[in-house]
Amino acid sequence: MTKDPMLLTPGPLTTSAATKRAMLRDWGSRDSNFIETNARSRERLLAIADAGDSHVCVPLQGSGTFVVEAVLGTIIPRHAKSLVLINGAYGKRMARILEIMGRAAVTMETPEDRPPSAEAVDAALAEDGDVTHVLAVHCETTTGILNPIVDIARVTAERGRDLVIDAMSSFGAIPLDAGRVPFVAGMASANKCLEGVPGLGFAIVRRQALEAAEGNAHSLSLDLFDQWRAMEGNGQWRFTPPTHVIFALARALDQYET
Amino acid sequence: MTKDPMLLTPGPLTTSAATKRAMLRDWGSRDSNFIETNARSRERLLAIADAGDSHVCVPLQGSGTFVVEAVLGTIIPRHAKSLVLINGAYGKRMARILEIMGRAAVTMETPEDRPPSAEAVDAALAEDGDVTHVLAVHCETTTGILNPIVDIARVTAERGRDLVIDAMSSFGAIPLDAGRVPFVAGMASANKCLEGVPGLGFAIVRRQALEAAEGNAHSLSLDLFDQWRAMEGNGQWRFTPPTHVIFALARALDQYET
Repeated sequence: MTKDPMLLTPGPLTTSAATKRAMLRDWGSRDSNFIETNARSRERLLAIADAGDSHVCVPLQGSGTFVVEAVLGTIIPRHAKSLVLINGAYGKRMARILEIMGRAAVTMETPEDRPPSAEAVDAALAEDGDVTHVLAVHCETTTGILNPIVDIARVTAERGRDLVIDAMSSFGAIPLDAGRVPFVAGMASANKCLEGVPGLGFAIVRRQALEAAEGNAHSLSLDLFDQWRAMEGNGQWRFTPPTHVIFALARALDQYET
Repeated sequence: MTKDPMLLTPGPLTTSAATKRAMLRDWGSRDSNFIETNARSRERLLAIADAGDSHVCVPLQGSGTFVVEAVLGTIIPRHAKSLVLINGAYGKRMARILEIMGRAAVTMETPEDRPPSAEAVDAALAEDGDVTHVLAVHCETTTGILNPIVDIARVTAERGRDLVIDAMSSFGAIPLDAGRVPFVAGMASANKCLEGVPGLGFAIVRRQALEAAEGNAHSLSLDLFDQWRAMEGNGQWRFTPPTHVIFALARALDQYET
């Protein structure tokens, strides 16, 4: 292994030997040991955001963009209007997803080297009463710029709107505490700061918002409500889960927590 | 490993030690060794269907259902009408996906233990000139029933319509020869008869149909045209690929071909 290059963010990055060795088994996705590990990982991810009392964790197969699209399609009501904060590729991508889904959105774009200002967000929300959701990227993968998510969350909450956070490149490395930063949904993936292997994303979603989201999604595969309800029902995934990737994440979390 | 249970279809199933050991490395998804392996696997999958002259292979992150939905959303034009042949859960799932996407469809349902008849398909196509696509499951995972795909393909082609085949549980085990069985798209996943690990699906799509599919998809993540165009452009995936799963499939194909 020593001759392999060291892979850093934006990833996929180098994982530990122990994490990779966790993939040297096969699991039945309806077996009790798989179900227990999956359930425990969901709790552990919630705990990282200190969100266990208010939110639930819903994992989804695919890359980070898949779970971003699943959250946007499922959690934002069809006739709601979003304000998307853009200062890089991932803000742009959220706006593009909304456009393809035919959902109403306005954007606030700043240069790649400049974070959006909470004051400007506050002013935009004061001006446009139709906006119900603010979509922000915590750390822009493309530039590494860290956006002022605490301030953005504060003004969004004060205006009575909901905040969706793409936390792909920050989750697990930079605190995102649900008690301190009000958010309706945050998304991340296994293969960045948690140092798992790619193939799995997850969302931390406020339980009340998810419960109200039945029938909202534009897609079966990316219906986060359906994914959550099925998993709550019998602990299993609706569709074949990436079992090896899931066990690698569990092993990565062991190392993360020590 | 000897104490682990032997996992059979419907899978995920037990993979060889060599296949699992292929995951003991990390790869940069923009590195040349990854790009070459990915390109070579796409060619090898096409060759299994003897489809290299007419079709292209487009892999997609997620479970088999993700690539089924991607094909239905991308390849079937928005205002086309589909005839879905149902004799089990996976036929029903294709109809459900079309319903969620708001695409027109009629169904032909037979009991779980009875295959659809090519004569009935022929009669239905004769009667309904609006139907442009027939959607069939080759082998229904839930029952193992094998549907008469050669006859269904023949009548569909004779009526000038396009056939989409969910070949999830048959691909690699039961011949699906593009020269003998005309189809516009066939879908399968890494983790059934090819004996890779779960987390990856792929579609074998007639090149002409894919070239005409720009802007058709209902989703960014599940836009198979966009996935294909990006991969043709620089050999890379649009969004983070499940690198370990992809190398496990390449290793599984080594064993499949010997």
